[in-house]
Amino acid sequence: MRREPHAERIDGLTRLFGIVGNPVTQVKTPQLMNALFDAGGVNAVCLPFDIPVNVFEPTVAGLQALDNLDGLVVTVPHKVRAMSMVDAMSDAARRVGALNVMRRQPDGTWFGDLFDGTGLVQGLTRLGFDVRGRRVKQLGAGGAGAAVAHALAEAGAAGIALSDPRRELAEELSARLKRFYPDCAAQVDVDPASVAGVDLLVNCSPVGMKPGDGMPASFGALPAALQVVDIIMTPAETPLLKHARQCGCRATNGRPMIEGQLAAFANFFGIDMPATFSCFSDARV
Amino acid sequence: MRREPHAERIDGLTRLFGIVGNPVTQVKTPQLMNALFDAGGVNAVCLPFDIPVNVFEPTVAGLQALDNLDGLVVTVPHKVRAMSMVDAMSDAARRVGALNVMRRQPDGTWFGDLFDGTGLVQGLTRLGFDVRGRRVKQLGAGGAGAAVAHALAEAGAAGIALSDPRRELAEELSARLKRFYPDCAAQVDVDPASVAGVDLLVNCSPVGMKPGDGMPASFGALPAALQVVDIIMTPAETPLLKHARQCGCRATNGRPMIEGQLAAFANFFGIDMPATFSCFSDARV
Repeated sequence: MRREPHAERIDGLTRLFGIVGNPVTQVKTPQLMNALFDAGGVNAVCLPFDIPVNVFEPTVAGLQALDNLDGLVVTVPHKVRAMSMVDAMSDAARRVGALNVMRRQPDGTWFGDLFDGTGLVQGLTRLGFDVRGRRVKQLGAGGAGAAVAHALAEAGAAGIALSDPRRELAEELSARLKRFYPDCAAQVDVDPASVAGVDLLVNCSPVGMKPGDGMPASFGALPAALQVVDIIMTPAETPLLKHARQCGCRATNGRPMIEGQLAAFANFFGIDMPATFSCFSDARV
Repeated sequence: MRREPHAERIDGLTRLFGIVGNPVTQVKTPQLMNALFDAGGVNAVCLPFDIPVNVFEPTVAGLQALDNLDGLVVTVPHKVRAMSMVDAMSDAARRVGALNVMRRQPDGTWFGDLFDGTGLVQGLTRLGFDVRGRRVKQLGAGGAGAAVAHALAEAGAAGIALSDPRRELAEELSARLKRFYPDCAAQVDVDPASVAGVDLLVNCSPVGMKPGDGMPASFGALPAALQVVDIIMTPAETPLLKHARQCGCRATNGRPMIEGQLAAFANFFGIDMPATFSCFSDARV
């Protein structure tokens, strides 16, 4: 049954959620979560909250003080500092050192979690790719890369080879992975274009977003058995994805990651997600 | 042209407005303002913000720090303390000692105003009743009463007779009116049921809201020339309104006041209000 649209049903009983970032003009979370609320008939709404970095903590404290606000999604550049605004957080958030969701608990305290990486793992599972025992090559060891690598290790990847032009980031991430996931062979890979023995190639670098960008490494022919993921959403087909498909690889952009994250958000915030719900009708994103 | 409903169009560019109160479950402002945004094709949304009294100031400061929040409507119990959260305010707000709207100015400062009373004056004007030179009898000298009396005096009422069971409130309000509006004969009226020589009778007391309430004073027959306003919205016809209509008076509830306020809000916040817009389609309120 089609529900009344939001404009007509935001009222004094509406529960509030928000995504905090700076800027927020690019965010898609309100569209996705509001479509979810509509589909489930939930009287709630998700808003963009643009918080300048110099007033992050008091502003989040103000939002948390609203009696009718139940949770926040956190995006760049606030994911690290958001850790100071929760009373407790998941192992995933603590290990990566960032969070991207926080919710008010029944006792009034705030709890944080991080789904940037688990969203990708869940998305891959839906595509029929099980991470367990697989050998991963990952380009990019920044914020998104750290979340993805931890989630892949947590999901049982046999090994993760990390490449980043900022070598110290790759070193640091590799060391953290070894500490938390001794069964996962983490290492820094000095040859970003090598995919020998790799089952899954993930691009977490920004290369491919800007017009004129090439691939994030000078890949030759890729084996057709290789699963390729580029977490970039725009453009929908990066040069890496195009090349991978030409090589016969299964290749996907960030969409399964976002779908996986939305399911994780819904579960985290206690929102029923209809089984038939898809967050990718073209009208929405 | 019908616009996409809010749920589909809240995005990263959506501007935020809110009504701050405690509780907020009863508020109608989001419904009214969102209908206005829809009608005008404005990418903005108005939310309820439930702010507990013990954290009012820091929470409002947090909302004001949001880069994409442009203004707030203020309702009970925050209208007096809201004065501390603006850099400047209108004469109306300063004289009454309360405000019910605040907006971010182009220079980043916050400016407050009060439309509780001017809304009623504008609503009466639309109904064809000009306050100028009229003699007013007003029941209730609390927060709403103060705003209404000041606005009536500002609009040129010849005199205002105030009755309130809390005599000191009527005395204090009368004194303030005399100070700011020496041309308006303000006085405390010890006989609340007397309407001799009165052109406009306004009820700003809460009597009539609760089931079983009678009239706010023991009125006898009212002259048919008397204009009666009861600012209560629920029930739509209070015992006072019913009696006034039976006496042949023109009598209205708080609806013209709310309509007048919405127009004032739109003007204050710089929102185009289509000439054909009505905030009282039954689907909305």
